[in-house]
Amino acid sequence: MKYKIKEATGKLGILMPGLGAVATTLIAGVASVNKGLSLPIGSVSQMSRIRLGKRTEDRNPLIKDFVPLAGLQDIVFGGWDLYADNVFEAASKAKVLEAHQLEAVREDLEKIVPMKAVFNRDFVKNLDGDHVKTQTTHRELIEALRADIKTFKAENNLDRVVIVWCGSTEKYIDAEDIFTELPKLEQALDNNDDRIPPSMLYCYAAILEGVPYVNGAPNLTCDAPAIVELALENNVAIAGKDFKTGQTLMKTIVAPGLQARALGVEGWFSTNILGNRDGLVLDDPDNFKTKEVSKLSVLEEILDANKNPELYGDLYHKVRINYYPPHGDNKESWDNIDIFGWMGYKMQIKINFLCRDSILAAPVVLDLALFIDLAQRSEMYGVQEWLSFYLKSPQTAPGLPAEHDIFKQLMKLQNTLRHIKGEDLITHLGLDYYQELIESIQ
Amino acid sequence: MKYKIKEATGKLGILMPGLGAVATTLIAGVASVNKGLSLPIGSVSQMSRIRLGKRTEDRNPLIKDFVPLAGLQDIVFGGWDLYADNVFEAASKAKVLEAHQLEAVREDLEKIVPMKAVFNRDFVKNLDGDHVKTQTTHRELIEALRADIKTFKAENNLDRVVIVWCGSTEKYIDAEDIFTELPKLEQALDNNDDRIPPSMLYCYAAILEGVPYVNGAPNLTCDAPAIVELALENNVAIAGKDFKTGQTLMKTIVAPGLQARALGVEGWFSTNILGNRDGLVLDDPDNFKTKEVSKLSVLEEILDANKNPELYGDLYHKVRINYYPPHGDNKESWDNIDIFGWMGYKMQIKINFLCRDSILAAPVVLDLALFIDLAQRSEMYGVQEWLSFYLKSPQTAPGLPAEHDIFKQLMKLQNTLRHIKGEDLITHLGLDYYQELIESIQ
Amino acid sequence: MKYKIKEATGKLGILMPGLGAVATTLIAGVASVNKGLSLPIGSVSQMSRIRLGKRTEDRNPLIKDFVPLAGLQDIVFGGWDLYADNVFEAASKAKVLEAHQLEAVREDLEKIVPMKAVFNRDFVKNLDGDHVKTQTTHRELIEALRADIKTFKAENNLDRVVIVWCGSTEKYIDAEDIFTELPKLEQALDNNDDRIPPSMLYCYAAILEGVPYVNGAPNLTCDAPAIVELALENNVAIAGKDFKTGQTLMKTIVAPGLQARALGVEGWFSTNILGNRDGLVLDDPDNFKTKEVSKLSVLEEILDANKNPELYGDLYHKVRINYYPPHGDNKESWDNIDIFGWMGYKMQIKINFLCRDSILAAPVVLDLALFIDLAQRSEMYGVQEWLSFYLKSPQTAPGLPAEHDIFKQLMKLQNTLRHIKGEDLITHLGLDYYQELIESIQ
Amino acid sequence: MKYKIKEATGKLGILMPGLGAVATTLIAGVASVNKGLSLPIGSVSQMSRIRLGKRTEDRNPLIKDFVPLAGLQDIVFGGWDLYADNVFEAASKAKVLEAHQLEAVREDLEKIVPMKAVFNRDFVKNLDGDHVKTQTTHRELIEALRADIKTFKAENNLDRVVIVWCGSTEKYIDAEDIFTELPKLEQALDNNDDRIPPSMLYCYAAILEGVPYVNGAPNLTCDAPAIVELALENNVAIAGKDFKTGQTLMKTIVAPGLQARALGVEGWFSTNILGNRDGLVLDDPDNFKTKEVSKLSVLEEILDANKNPELYGDLYHKVRINYYPPHGDNKESWDNIDIFGWMGYKMQIKINFLCRDSILAAPVVLDLALFIDLAQRSEMYGVQEWLSFYLKSPQTAPGLPAEHDIFKQLMKLQNTLRHIKGEDLITHLGLDYYQELIESIQ
Repeated sequence: MKYKIKEATGKLGILMPGLGAVATTLIAGVASVNKGLSLPIGSVSQMSRIRLGKRTEDRNPLIKDFVPLAGLQDIVFGGWDLYADNVFEAASKAKVLEAHQLEAVREDLEKIVPMKAVFNRDFVKNLDGDHVKTQTTHRELIEALRADIKTFKAENNLDRVVIVWCGSTEKYIDAEDIFTELPKLEQALDNNDDRIPPSMLYCYAAILEGVPYVNGAPNLTCDAPAIVELALENNVAIAGKDFKTGQTLMKTIVAPGLQARALGVEGWFSTNILGNRDGLVLDDPDNFKTKEVSKLSVLEEILDANKNPELYGDLYHKVRINYYPPHGDNKESWDNIDIFGWMGYKMQIKINFLCRDSILAAPVVLDLALFIDLAQRSEMYGVQEWLSFYLKSPQTAPGLPAEHDIFKQLMKLQNTLRHIKGEDLITHLGLDYYQELIESIQ
Repeated sequence: MKYKIKEATGKLGILMPGLGAVATTLIAGVASVNKGLSLPIGSVSQMSRIRLGKRTEDRNPLIKDFVPLAGLQDIVFGGWDLYADNVFEAASKAKVLEAHQLEAVREDLEKIVPMKAVFNRDFVKNLDGDHVKTQTTHRELIEALRADIKTFKAENNLDRVVIVWCGSTEKYIDAEDIFTELPKLEQALDNNDDRIPPSMLYCYAAILEGVPYVNGAPNLTCDAPAIVELALENNVAIAGKDFKTGQTLMKTIVAPGLQARALGVEGWFSTNILGNRDGLVLDDPDNFKTKEVSKLSVLEEILDANKNPELYGDLYHKVRINYYPPHGDNKESWDNIDIFGWMGYKMQIKINFLCRDSILAAPVVLDLALFIDLAQRSEMYGVQEWLSFYLKSPQTAPGLPAEHDIFKQLMKLQNTLRHIKGEDLITHLGLDYYQELIESIQ
Repeated sequence: MKYKIKEATGKLGILMPGLGAVATTLIAGVASVNKGLSLPIGSVSQMSRIRLGKRTEDRNPLIKDFVPLAGLQDIVFGGWDLYADNVFEAASKAKVLEAHQLEAVREDLEKIVPMKAVFNRDFVKNLDGDHVKTQTTHRELIEALRADIKTFKAENNLDRVVIVWCGSTEKYIDAEDIFTELPKLEQALDNNDDRIPPSMLYCYAAILEGVPYVNGAPNLTCDAPAIVELALENNVAIAGKDFKTGQTLMKTIVAPGLQARALGVEGWFSTNILGNRDGLVLDDPDNFKTKEVSKLSVLEEILDANKNPELYGDLYHKVRINYYPPHGDNKESWDNIDIFGWMGYKMQIKINFLCRDSILAAPVVLDLALFIDLAQRSEMYGVQEWLSFYLKSPQTAPGLPAEHDIFKQLMKLQNTLRHIKGEDLITHLGLDYYQELIESIQ
Repeated sequence: MKYKIKEATGKLGILMPGLGAVATTLIAGVASVNKGLSLPIGSVSQMSRIRLGKRTEDRNPLIKDFVPLAGLQDIVFGGWDLYADNVFEAASKAKVLEAHQLEAVREDLEKIVPMKAVFNRDFVKNLDGDHVKTQTTHRELIEALRADIKTFKAENNLDRVVIVWCGSTEKYIDAEDIFTELPKLEQALDNNDDRIPPSMLYCYAAILEGVPYVNGAPNLTCDAPAIVELALENNVAIAGKDFKTGQTLMKTIVAPGLQARALGVEGWFSTNILGNRDGLVLDDPDNFKTKEVSKLSVLEEILDANKNPELYGDLYHKVRINYYPPHGDNKESWDNIDIFGWMGYKMQIKINFLCRDSILAAPVVLDLALFIDLAQRSEMYGVQEWLSFYLKSPQTAPGLPAEHDIFKQLMKLQNTLRHIKGEDLITHLGLDYYQELIESIQ
């Protein structure tokens, strides 16, 4: 069975609420790649190959040549921000990229100016900006955002638009009450209920415009059941949440390895130091809580103490984030993992990751935008679990436990691509090679 | 299709050439588990569950309850060594386990006394022992080993025997000339050719006795084409080579993670410090070379520069092993990984693994022994690639590139078990959950 | 000039408020040393030599042979605790020492039973115990403590007694008002002022009994000006505060090295994970604050931004302590140090210290006890700055900045010992060797 | 007593054999400082203050304001190299400094062109260059070097010249036979003895020209007894050897700290990865041996097993250097230190130093040049042990053990400066502050 996939004709708009370090690094990078100055390293959609058929067939096309994706030349970027800086100014302040690299794409960046943001300081105490919309009710703000999307699409003569949230982490809220069913959410919007965060207004507006939406932060947005309902009703693809980069990326690489070998884990201590705006926002306990919930869940699912109480029943998992200005965007993580093996003997693993936050996140945003556009064109609506590969807290069908193991997530992503193109799924069984061998000898 | 699998009735003998730190740790551990004093942590066959069917079915039996394996109570250990120490004495000298744990199983260990080894110092310069066979020709030595196996089987009233090489790494030799075809090897054995290493005599004897053979060291043994031929002719399962523990284990966990995310790798520096007999043997450059070849190949295959020259074409990979007595069996590895991401920006990962060599290796030996016995009972003869999960240099069908990615290897192992039991293979596609969701809403 | 030093005749009693991990490790260790089973590693008074005269004279006696110290055989231990466990029970629960080592000195330990503690939960929220004194006024409690000291001395037939505080860190209080002058403190004691912490009652009682007092925790005790006055009036030696072990020890080793070479420091991030009672107490922010003040001051003084603004003016220093039960008493610290050199180029140092808290602290308690006894016998009363070598927040003369550089502190300790024995002070000038050389040639 | 110190009038020439990464980084840095673009961080002579008198006097001048040193504006650089690149080209190839910083001083750098080197590939196998002198006898080469020095001095109108060896490490040779006495060396020079390395010809020429000489590499040069004799006869200051940077710097910081606290050291494993020319040269075992001897001696002296056999008698010390091109000049070291404390309990320290080789070395060269010029002007001839602070293998008077403890070395340097200026030496005794306190109270 092959899916019918609409071709990726014309231009694709990528709108991002939050034109900070991550978004500007993405925009500058795509401009640089389009000028032939850089490679989109870290982007699976652009750089990775996918194996098709048997190991011996040697069919390994680039993913971008296997499924129809928007080309980098056909992307138009835009977004909203609570600071009025254009993308060149914002990128310069973010200090992620070197000055000479920004200079090389200065013109492309300067012409991207943020639209006014929907912002509510109750949800992000440590930030303050004045480039914000002045409407006062939820319904008015939604209409203003819809108008923004329409204008952006028209002015740039776009075929399609997707939205990827690149803004700060909002404070923790539970998926309760008004968020559980669509009618309740509609009612709350009418009542201007102050429990509704700005990010949900963006998401709501997107879905009404038929625009796929991805949530890159850990706050409650498109994973609210009411929003899932809305997306299915409107035939819109959604995915979330929380870009998986840095320490959690390493965690979902290493933990499956330990679990694979039936090694016990007694403790996992993770600390981070970073000095960018993200670090500043997460210095507030309310915002950190949102992040912490997202970061902690990862190990619980992978190690699954219920199934392996002797190995993981006593796991003590602690995550700390420390605002440390000397490092700027160069986030550094340090993990101490206390494991035990044969007869209970203890061992330790220490991982020190000198990473760059936005460098890791930028290609993740790109892939998510291109793949959710593919999903939409393939008429795959609602939650896109196959994009869990990129996300710390993957959104799934109600009641379905998420897979956090990055290798199962990769398998899921690749087999989904194979599936929609009608190729055989890979199982890594491979006994046939040996059958042939035996036969050849006999 | 289900395989016909002979039940695991009666007793299984596990013979190990080399009753050193690894073998004695295994023997002591199984004795301790059988007394209810320890758990066989790190043994996938004993501790891990396997998912069957859909995620929502919640069928996750222990592997040992899913496929018929020999029970730990039904194992009888034996082996050969160039030192005459019984297993209790050897374990005490190895200093892997605490004295009080050895005391608890002292009786079981004392009664296991090594048979005289086939040993040739040309292949392991840094060792010397006098508990060796006095026969002088290859053919005589093979007959002596066959007699050893027969006696061990008879005296212990065993149903089946398997052999797992736990001896030291022999010096590097190429798989050339006399090793390429069985008739040439037979001729060389007749000629007493001094290029044939002791390990190959053990392997040859095992196969003639219908005993499955696993090679836990990196030297050329059952991966010689001549031996593969012999195994297929005699309907014997074989697998190799080089137990995957410590640093290489971490490498085959982390490298697939980097590759999954299309992150470039510019350099990978790996150093080890260890102070056990293994460290002493590898202090000799000839023996280190054998190990080095095995350790280096891992990254080449996973990262595959041919398919991704921009990402891995300049990879500089260096592996060092240092004999460092203060650490004894507590091998410590340190890796520095130079990676690059979006637009070529550089990042670093440092991994410091405070491991215990024999603690990691012992359950690997156990699993390999139990699984190759399963393969033999399932009439799966010749090379068992599905056991590559445990091995640094997996032996495959001629011309077939090995998979070093531990997650693909795990998939292969698990899907092989599902396959021989007639269960559905897992692909992690999982789109059906969402189809149901959409239908339930409509 | 030589000091008149009273000989160390008879027995020395060492009383410790707080018979927890540190105190019991000390007591067990001294018992073990006295039985010939262990060495007092880490004790400068017992193991270190001191150079006397010129390098070429080769006079390097052990310190214990150079100045008259109480012998380990002549020490009698005692103390107070809010739990009634005897020292064997407390040591077993602390899990610092291996069971077989505790067994070897079990008798010695079992007979040491704590006296009832003065305890006030307002000062240490995370602890609770019922082995506490029932008197209700400060004056009554002081009298009870004085009676304890007298009884301990009489029953054990002691020549002298010293007290070293080994209890938990009390909450942060400022050295204000009632603590600034002795008459005010006396008044506050009369009024039963609830700002006076338990530790100060111990100290007050000690001084009235003529017993030297050392404060091993960072809370305000003998460094209150009122207490200094009391000590001088009563001719009693005092010293404080906060045992220097683990991460701060490393910091006062490494920071002077960077400063010596005029390397700039832009950031220093320090995190600790530990799972003992100390970790539990410091999980409370009030108690952590006391510790934090003590830990932060160290770098400020060593690097001295006022004198070197270009090098240290922007230093960002952050210290974190995390309660992490899997590690127990095996405290682990991790430091990231951002330095810069020639032309401002940045470099990083990472230090990972896998330490054992009580193992490092025990010999520090021993040395402080023996040396303050020496000071008292040498008629050196009041603050003993020469013991700053062992302390995170050295107490000094009013207005005199403390030296935190451990090498200057060592120099001070050694030259003080040389001074009181009438030996030449060492300056490391050493030009005379070359003068001789030149003359010999001419 | 004050020394008579000749003022630092006129210009000082600094000649360096080896205009590679270190020398060009120094030259570019000084040019940059002179233009007001950088600070000479890491240079004690320029940035550090020296305490004079009592702590309470608050007299802490910069060293360069305390003793008369040549000003940075008065330095003229020159040198020899086996490649003809001018300093701008060589600095660009060395890739230590960023391109824009080199551009800013391009003119200053381009005009410095190396003189032809004396080079003999027998002593440095891994290098090859054609910018070498063509004379064939030792005596002719010495005369050529003397002519170079004279010309350099005359053309640049210099008051004084010093030479600091910044070339590669030559292969290991013993200080035997021809190197033990001056007449033997003279004879060997006449005989064109091929055991005499190029570096010794530079040194010999320097001394005959009355030019102070410092050896920055570990090979035998000015520490040969014959050369010491020559220097004293000619009233020339000399110092050596082997710049102390990176890992050994850390070692001489940390080891004294452990020794200070009487902590035992059982093992110290040090590994380095670097990818510059230095790394390439040290990839040859003969050259590594020279370096290894220098690096190993450090711990032996500091820890002194003879005086502390229980603490350091079993120390296992291993040093490894690995050529690893991905890191270029960004040398990285990793140390594992196995220590033990109270009752023999084991602990570990891991230090990971992400350093920059030439950034650390450049200010060391500057200080050595300025200080040896000061020594010469102060009529302090022969070996300058007070400069041991900068050197891995400090040269001392015959039979006098070197001090490797960097804090004793710092004391020696500072007290030497105080001494020649007639200031009180610092002993850190400081009991007087307390005497005053006691008196003020009484």
